[in-house]
Amino acid sequence: MNCYPQSLERLMAELAKLPGIGPKTAQRLAFHILDRGPDAANRLAEALNEAAAKLGECPVCFHIAEEGHCALCDDKTRDDSVLCVVESSRDIIPIERSGSFHGRYHVLGGLLSPMEGIGPAELHLKELLKRLEDDTVTEVILATGSNVEGEATAVYIADLLKPLDITVTRIAQGMPVGGDLEYIDEITLAKALAGRREF
Amino acid sequence: MNCYPQSLERLMAELAKLPGIGPKTAQRLAFHILDRGPDAANRLAEALNEAAAKLGECPVCFHIAEEGHCALCDDKTRDDSVLCVVESSRDIIPIERSGSFHGRYHVLGGLLSPMEGIGPAELHLKELLKRLEDDTVTEVILATGSNVEGEATAVYIADLLKPLDITVTRIAQGMPVGGDLEYIDEITLAKALAGRREF
Repeated sequence: MNCYPQSLERLMAELAKLPGIGPKTAQRLAFHILDRGPDAANRLAEALNEAAAKLGECPVCFHIAEEGHCALCDDKTRDDSVLCVVESSRDIIPIERSGSFHGRYHVLGGLLSPMEGIGPAELHLKELLKRLEDDTVTEVILATGSNVEGEATAVYIADLLKPLDITVTRIAQGMPVGGDLEYIDEITLAKALAGRREF
Repeated sequence: MNCYPQSLERLMAELAKLPGIGPKTAQRLAFHILDRGPDAANRLAEALNEAAAKLGECPVCFHIAEEGHCALCDDKTRDDSVLCVVESSRDIIPIERSGSFHGRYHVLGGLLSPMEGIGPAELHLKELLKRLEDDTVTEVILATGSNVEGEATAVYIADLLKPLDITVTRIAQGMPVGGDLEYIDEITLAKALAGRREF
């Protein structure tokens, strides 16, 4: 069916490559973009080109960064003695939003997953060990997710850091705030019970 | 919170302007785009720029078109005697997909909506009347939606075309194929009963 001009078909095809966007949504987005006029489309295009050109990884913590060090590594007010290890850049926002952490980050760039061929060499572990060499860091918080890969990666790193004189901690598992006992899965409940604290 | 570089924040802000895309989805899309590498981002940007530069309206039927007439107006095999009036370019695809129409189209560019300040002058009605002047068209099918604005617009156009010697028809209302009587609303059912045909 050749109802649409080629450049529109191409735009829809490119949009449909995005996650969670099927052909129908791609069509809706394309029409919306065109309805807003060429300026809006060009602005989005410019933002894409700029992001593609400027963004890379921070050479220290591997957080997403623009030309050089990231804002978090540059921030002089943060605590150098605590290092929070996360899977990806995406995980930093929720931690920052919680307002409960003011140390430094280290982005692994993935999680151990033999099924997908991701071993220790694929993660930024050598760089993590290098950052721990000068004894500035006294605590490493393992903040990978609570899924199988996140757990396995945390256990692996804890083992790796055992020879060093550094406290290694893991973020707590338990009931999410606002969670109903009735609807919580039994494994989470078991973790919540095991991790109970004195009131 | 300044966790992300400016160009990433900008990309997320531009993506969040799209319909149905909130800040969380925009973040997911932005990271996905960056994960695919700069080439993919540039390709999407190029598609946007090209669409913005090339696409406009067909001067005859107001369907979305690339530089000049649209493929549907250019198609010599279509029936010039039947004209299907639709709200927007988006409505042409489902009609084409149905395979039940081989005439020409006329895109109104909206529906009458006093609430939103859209009156007859805002729609491509003058151009519709002009297309009907040379007696080529013998039937006009009013294929606007079955909502209040769609109905009102169809009634308005039917009145407008009454003086002309042209058959004006309206697409049927009734049960959608696969629809269950149990779950259908009573207004649709009333229309389905009123529009019943001999078996």
